[in-house]
Amino acid sequence: MRITALAGGVGGARFVRGLLHELREVRGDRDTEVVVVGNTGDDITLFGLRICPDLDTILYTLGGGINEGQGWGRDSETHTVQAELAELGAQPQWFGLGDKDFATHIARSQWLGQGHTLSEVTERLAQRWGLPERGVRVLPATDTPIETHVVLDDPDGGERAVHFQQWWVQLQAAVPARRFTVAGLGQAVPAPGVLDALRTSDVILLPPSNPVVSIGIILGVPGVRDALRGSRAPVVGVSPIIGGAPVRGHADACLSAMDVEVSANGVAGLYADFLNGWLIDEADAGSVNRPRLQVRPLDLRMRDEVGAARIAGAALDLAADLATQRSA
Amino acid sequence: MRITALAGGVGGARFVRGLLHELREVRGDRDTEVVVVGNTGDDITLFGLRICPDLDTILYTLGGGINEGQGWGRDSETHTVQAELAELGAQPQWFGLGDKDFATHIARSQWLGQGHTLSEVTERLAQRWGLPERGVRVLPATDTPIETHVVLDDPDGGERAVHFQQWWVQLQAAVPARRFTVAGLGQAVPAPGVLDALRTSDVILLPPSNPVVSIGIILGVPGVRDALRGSRAPVVGVSPIIGGAPVRGHADACLSAMDVEVSANGVAGLYADFLNGWLIDEADAGSVNRPRLQVRPLDLRMRDEVGAARIAGAALDLAADLATQRSA
Repeated sequence: MRITALAGGVGGARFVRGLLHELREVRGDRDTEVVVVGNTGDDITLFGLRICPDLDTILYTLGGGINEGQGWGRDSETHTVQAELAELGAQPQWFGLGDKDFATHIARSQWLGQGHTLSEVTERLAQRWGLPERGVRVLPATDTPIETHVVLDDPDGGERAVHFQQWWVQLQAAVPARRFTVAGLGQAVPAPGVLDALRTSDVILLPPSNPVVSIGIILGVPGVRDALRGSRAPVVGVSPIIGGAPVRGHADACLSAMDVEVSANGVAGLYADFLNGWLIDEADAGSVNRPRLQVRPLDLRMRDEVGAARIAGAALDLAADLATQRSA
Repeated sequence: MRITALAGGVGGARFVRGLLHELREVRGDRDTEVVVVGNTGDDITLFGLRICPDLDTILYTLGGGINEGQGWGRDSETHTVQAELAELGAQPQWFGLGDKDFATHIARSQWLGQGHTLSEVTERLAQRWGLPERGVRVLPATDTPIETHVVLDDPDGGERAVHFQQWWVQLQAAVPARRFTVAGLGQAVPAPGVLDALRTSDVILLPPSNPVVSIGIILGVPGVRDALRGSRAPVVGVSPIIGGAPVRGHADACLSAMDVEVSANGVAGLYADFLNGWLIDEADAGSVNRPRLQVRPLDLRMRDEVGAARIAGAALDLAADLATQRSA
């Protein structure tokens, strides 16, 4: 069996870690291959190094090297390099990079510079984390460099665009976004294996990642949304919104910019053309009214790996029910 | 007044630090500008980052950030980045790079990538170390990328060339060098300020740096040797050989490859066309027989900064005597 999940950063990574726990530990399933398609719109070049925050969060989380409390970055991290870069006057300083994390970006940049694709680089990084042995493949949504920009009101009137990370990290998404644009997205090509994974999977999962700037970017890579629409596999999603607020991050600010209601129902609308099953929190029971969508309420708080496994298990159960209904 | 010194790594850097001590602390001279022209033939690109070992050793030593015991690299250094690069399978691992040191290479590579010259980058790094305020300028010999290669006997017969650092660091110069070649040297252009410094200096000093792979490379940049030959200033050198052995490093292996005697006399011969004064160790008194060269024996062991200052002071005294003789 094969399961494909589209994922952003922290929420997506924790959900997939729970999925692996559910499959391997709870169900004793060693064979099902899990393919994670990661968002690359957040990628940024800082200090001349290529940084892929979402892919790294996925790799570190699945590989056991994540800073658990923070949700991103490496465990037991030091910050010697960045402190020295500050002494040297190298910019910017608002993006926190630890020393072990720097090694990832240095290796990635070196390999990209040697002509390897982001897919190849990601595969190599995944080896360091023992993911192939555990039946996990992490694919970037695309090898084409893309970059999410946030259009903001300019104090002088008019508007200005900043890199997504600058809005998210430096401005803490506190400045209202007018809209998002993604440089390069129209010409982007799905990375090798992405469309194939979507077409041949038995289950497709949407973790509780940001529906606009994470999942939304992956869906924007030409061909991906069509593959989801045409997939034979049930597509089951997990709402990132509980009771009108995002579980984590600034999804509310993103949804507002798109004039989408900050609710489990609003997010489901963004996926309406391909979503079959929708896990929502108990707090939102009865709030989603979409006749063709199978909605199941449960406790959606991912308190730890076991909690995430429980939610992933519910998603798999819902997918199995949908598959049974289809074949009936 | 202006003094220009050509310098390699550890020996050159320590000598120039002694020179500054002699000028500023001993002689109370705050005005004399010191220009250091650093060797760039050792430069190497590792992990996609541009590393300039000699320039960095000069900057760290003069700036007070050197690992004193080791002679190169940063003080109180950690090695988190390199350890993680090893985990990632990034190569090579034989070149030791600490975390603070990595920051230098990251900043340099970023700035070079933005189109700045090595001179501009070096000036920016020198600011971090407070060198302009202290009347010191550090110039690369050339902004043209050059690379010293070492030609070795191949086990299968014939020969093979390796990067200088591979021979020096990984092979510890234990494999006999057939000869040295310097890629790019013939087309190299002296960095801005280098020829001007040589032409307008009142004293030119050759610290006890490696005469082949450090000073020899600087002299090989087209125009530099001519500027020394035509200089109005006395040129005074400090022998890097004491009693038939190099004070530090593998100068003996380098001289042997060139069929030059490993002696104060042999090295003086390499500089014969422009050298006016030559400081040798007391152990070598009487061993240099070059009628037009003014030779002075003294204790040449640079035990510490004060010891280096004493030697630098002797070099300045000899230069002053030579200048007086000329004007007489």
